[in-house]
This record gives sequence, structure tokens and C-alpha cells, in this order.
Amino acid sequence: MLAFALGITAAQAQAPASAPPLQVREIGSMHVGGQVRALDGMPMREMVPSPGAPPIRMDPNGEFMVEGMYAQYVKLAEPRARYPLLLWHGGGLTGVTWETTPDGRPGWQMYFLRQGHDVYVSDAVERGRAGWARFPEIFAGEPVFRTMGEGWGLFRVGPQEGWNADPARRRAFPETLFPVAAWNDFTRQSVPRWPTTDRQIQAAYNEYVRKVCPCVIIVHSQGGNFAFNAALAAPDKVRAIIAIEPSGTPAAATDASPLRNVPHLVVWGDYFAESPFWQRIRGNVERWVGSIREAGGTADIMDLPAEGVRGNSHMLMMDRNSDEVASRIQAWMERQGLMR
Amino acid sequence: MLAFALGITAAQAQAPASAPPLQVREIGSMHVGGQVRALDGMPMREMVPSPGAPPIRMDPNGEFMVEGMYAQYVKLAEPRARYPLLLWHGGGLTGVTWETTPDGRPGWQMYFLRQGHDVYVSDAVERGRAGWARFPEIFAGEPVFRTMGEGWGLFRVGPQEGWNADPARRRAFPETLFPVAAWNDFTRQSVPRWPTTDRQIQAAYNEYVRKVCPCVIIVHSQGGNFAFNAALAAPDKVRAIIAIEPSGTPAAATDASPLRNVPHLVVWGDYFAESPFWQRIRGNVERWVGSIREAGGTADIMDLPAEGVRGNSHMLMMDRNSDEVASRIQAWMERQGLMR
Repeated sequence: MLAFALGITAAQAQAPASAPPLQVREIGSMHVGGQVRALDGMPMREMVPSPGAPPIRMDPNGEFMVEGMYAQYVKLAEPRARYPLLLWHGGGLTGVTWETTPDGRPGWQMYFLRQGHDVYVSDAVERGRAGWARFPEIFAGEPVFRTMGEGWGLFRVGPQEGWNADPARRRAFPETLFPVAAWNDFTRQSVPRWPTTDRQIQAAYNEYVRKVCPCVIIVHSQGGNFAFNAALAAPDKVRAIIAIEPSGTPAAATDASPLRNVPHLVVWGDYFAESPFWQRIRGNVERWVGSIREAGGTADIMDLPAEGVRGNSHMLMMDRNSDEVASRIQAWMERQGLMR
Repeated sequence: MLAFALGITAAQAQAPASAPPLQVREIGSMHVGGQVRALDGMPMREMVPSPGAPPIRMDPNGEFMVEGMYAQYVKLAEPRARYPLLLWHGGGLTGVTWETTPDGRPGWQMYFLRQGHDVYVSDAVERGRAGWARFPEIFAGEPVFRTMGEGWGLFRVGPQEGWNADPARRRAFPETLFPVAAWNDFTRQSVPRWPTTDRQIQAAYNEYVRKVCPCVIIVHSQGGNFAFNAALAAPDKVRAIIAIEPSGTPAAATDASPLRNVPHLVVWGDYFAESPFWQRIRGNVERWVGSIREAGGTADIMDLPAEGVRGNSHMLMMDRNSDEVASRIQAWMERQGLMR
């Protein structure tokens, strides 16, 4: 239905195998940010690097390149978007968030490539191809490992008490659009995270923005706060932020006026009534939206259930209507003049 | 010079920005392999998921999806290769090995895409987007973190005693083709590794082969042994192995006869005279090559210095002549009938 409203054909919206080939100029990647840290005083170790190879002595002391992040880009031969589109993941996850969905459909990376954006997908400090550093010597504290069940409630796929290790006994919200049969596949995307590395993550994101922007950022969940702060640090470099269920904001007293020329869109899924935790987060985020508006900026809210789209989880980009949600975001970008 | 010999123009070999666009059918990714592991008996923890968000209580016990691996693919509209080409990285690294070189040139992922292969780039268990598991409860022992200096000698860029934390004071082999000015950038690609996870890594690679092959595998360093064993486990699925400086082999007594129809190419760089460690590895690998030949199979050795190409390090795919080395491998694949 929405596809008709936007003048998009079903073939374009679903990007089937029969879609015309993408015209790709370059696929590549980079690491950005980080610093050298030296460690000393730890004892020598011995290890066999691979079966059959002779053992080697390892000195764990020395210099380490740490706290950088990773980004991969796909550049089109003739992008229609004015700026590259950067996709930033949430907590305990990596850039895989934006790739093929857990049930095997093309994800938002492909969707926005087909709409004519150069697309950058990154892994924040400590996650995925960014790598991570020895703890507690370099990263403070210890990492958190997400259980397979934690996201069931936290991502509003079902009530937390509906989680069960046995897939046949799991209880989801009746109308959920998350592809629940692929839940175990989704949990393969989890990576450990540290509660102590926000400063380093922010520094690397700021460097990333300096290096590859001007740009538009689509950001999810924990990434929201990093994108809001990156825009405050470089408001001339960030041409729009689309925040998908952001979980944090700059401190309440922060002056939002540098963002008055950075249009924002915040997107919310369904089932907030089931989650006091998400209601509190939403309240904080909408206060930040209010600050941007008071400063004279544009900050729109896309409340999907209020627009008649029911059943979305926190993982909107993986839900069965992921292309429909993406098409609404694409339409917002068109209205903001972000496409040629 | 080689480009002329192969009938490849300089423009094709270097794939500049002016090259024609790649015709891409699909870019996507998957996780494969792994298993569910349950932990219990650990105390509850509390954490703030992101600044400004309310604290949440974390139960570290529960089920975890562990020991899977990650693969990303780029499929062409009209591949010229008969089979997908899988690129497997070495120890302490991820699939980034095959992407843009540390000094910013297109890597082998792009080179082989431009030659007409569907290209899969993976991250082995415990590395990159594959994620890693709590230790010592799930992964035995502790990980090893590579110092910035270790690879200088181990990867035969220069004598180990030529390493210095100060880039201006580093001493490389005079004719090295590694882009030494980008050494610090290369070390950003390092990730921790466990000396204890070979069984899990092999199991995931075997599952990966079952899922996406028939295929051709290009494998580097520590990955070599995993590819040799994956081919032994599924000799009908692996149509060729190109092993770039493999660091290990199946046990000496292993029957190589299942591989008599799997052509192998082993590629060696320069400076073996400077490294007794690599001489021992090479001896083991060439014994394995001999076993394949004795079983009636094809196992070729590309000794680059013997062919007049001097100065290659262990990181051939990043060396300044990376395209030239790739073009020799491409020519070998053509001779094996692997292209249409």
C-alpha cells in the first residue's frame, strides 16, 4: 500500500533477484581513529600458532593499536543521493545489523544502495572488525555477553517471560513482525560489549565523521547517543540523522542550537505499552527532540503504530516489513532534499 | 611486465577509479555453524546500557549462541568464474585482510570481483563479526593479543630487531614490497585470537563449505590448515585451494588421496633465508604437497623469488605488487579450467 503511495513499484520495494544489477564503482574498507597504547611487566608466554607449526614465544608486552573502528563502503557508479549514507549499529551488535536479515532477506544496506546511496557500514570500537583490547589493562572492567534470551524482551519481540530456550515454547507478541523463527540466527550476530568504553567509541565515531562526511547517518539504539554527539561536534558535516529507536541522548542541559540545521528523524516501533524501560528512554529522547525544535531545528518523529503500522520490534531493520519502514525513511530523505 | 605476458592491460590490472562499474546482483552476509551453550551459577550484574538510559540488571547466566563464523558475499550479475571464490584469512586477523590494502589500494576482494568471481570474505570463529565467547567458561584459556611489532619479523617485512615503536627508526628489508609507511594502519586490523579454538574453527569452516560450495578457496597463513582439512572433509565440494604462505598442514600421516582431484597451488614470498621459523613451516607444507602429488593429485608451488619476483612479505595481498601476484594466481585458475 505504501509503495503505491510513494510511487514505488513492488519490484523496487522488494528488490528481488530479478532487479537490475547495481552499478558499483568500488567496494572497500578502512579503520579510523584509535591510538597506540604500551603495556609492560607481563611474563612471557609460549604458544603453537597452528597445528603442526613449531611453538613460538610470545611477549605480551609492547605497543598495541587500540580503540579504532572499522567501516566498509560500497560506492555506486552514479549515486542519486547527495551524500554518503552511514549506517551505525546498536549495543552488542555490529554492522551486520544492516546486512541480510536473519531470515535471509536483503537488509537495509542493499535497500539503500538500490535507492541510489553510497552506503557505509561500520563496526564501533570493541566490536566486529574493529577489534578489542586487553582488559582490564586497556579496556576498563570486563565485557558483557548478551544471552540468547535477553533481547526477546529488551527488543520487544515478546514479553520477557515468553522467552524459552526451546524455540517451540517461545511466546512472542501475537502481531510481532520480527521473524521469530530466525531468532537463533539473529543471536549469532551478538558480540560482547563493555559498559566502560563510551568515551573511546565516541572519539572514533567523531574521527570517522571528520574523515568521510559530509554524510547522512542512520543510527540504531545505543548508537543514537553517539550520532547525536558526533553531530554536535561537527554540525557542518552531518546533513541529517535518522535515529531508529535511539536509547540515549546528550545530557539534558546540552545546548542543541548547533543542530538547528541538521534535520532529525526519530523512528519508533510498537509495544511501548509493554515496556516501562522503553517508555523512560522514549521520554528522554523526545525531550532531546524538543530541545532541537526549540533551537529552531527540524526534528520529526515517525511513530509507526500511530501511522497505522503495527507490530514492529526494536529491530525494525530486520522485521518482516523492513523494506516498508525503509521506504518511509527514504521518502523523508527525499522531502529533506537529500537526493539529487 | 607480467601484465603484458598475461595479455592484461595495465588499466585492468590496477583497476583504477575509471574502470567500468561492477555489475552486482547482490551483496549480503550470513553466520554459519556454532552451537548453543548454557552457563549458570554466576552472580547478577548491573549496567547502564548507554549514557542517560536507566540501569538494567544483567543476568550473565543463560544460553549463548557461540562458535559460529561470519561470511559476506558479493555476487555478480554474470560471473565468469565457474564457482564462488572464498577468501580465508590468517591468524589474529579477519576478512579485512582481503579488502582495501593498509595504504589504500583496492585489495584482492576487488581484484577477483573484477576478474569475474563471486567473492565471499569470511571471519573465522572468535574473530571480527563472528563474535567470541566468554572465557575460560566457553572458550578455553585466554586470548593472545598481537603487539604492533610482532608481525614485523614474523611476516618477514624486516628483521625482528629492526622493529621500533618510532616509525622513523624502523628498519625493513631493503627491497621489501610491503607498504611500510602504512604499518601502523595494518596493525589496526589485528584482533585477539585463542590458541585453543582450532577444533571449533575447523567445525565452522566445514559447515561453511557444506553451505556455500562447490567453490574455490584462497587461504592465508593460519587458515591454510583449516582449508586443507575442510577439503579432506568435503573433497567433492572444494574445486581448488590456493594457499598463500600456509603455516600448517594436516598431520604427516594423513592420507592425501581424497584430494587427488582438488588442484592445489602454494604461493611463497621472499626472505625465507632470514627466517628459520618459516623454513621449518615451508618444509612441513612441501611434505604435504608431496603427499598430494604421490596420491596422483596436482599441487603446484609458486615460488615468487624463483620466478624473478623479489621482495614479497608474508602479507602478499597487501604488498605493493599485490595485483601482480593476484594476476599470477588468476592465470593459474584459468589454466585449471576454473573460469568460463
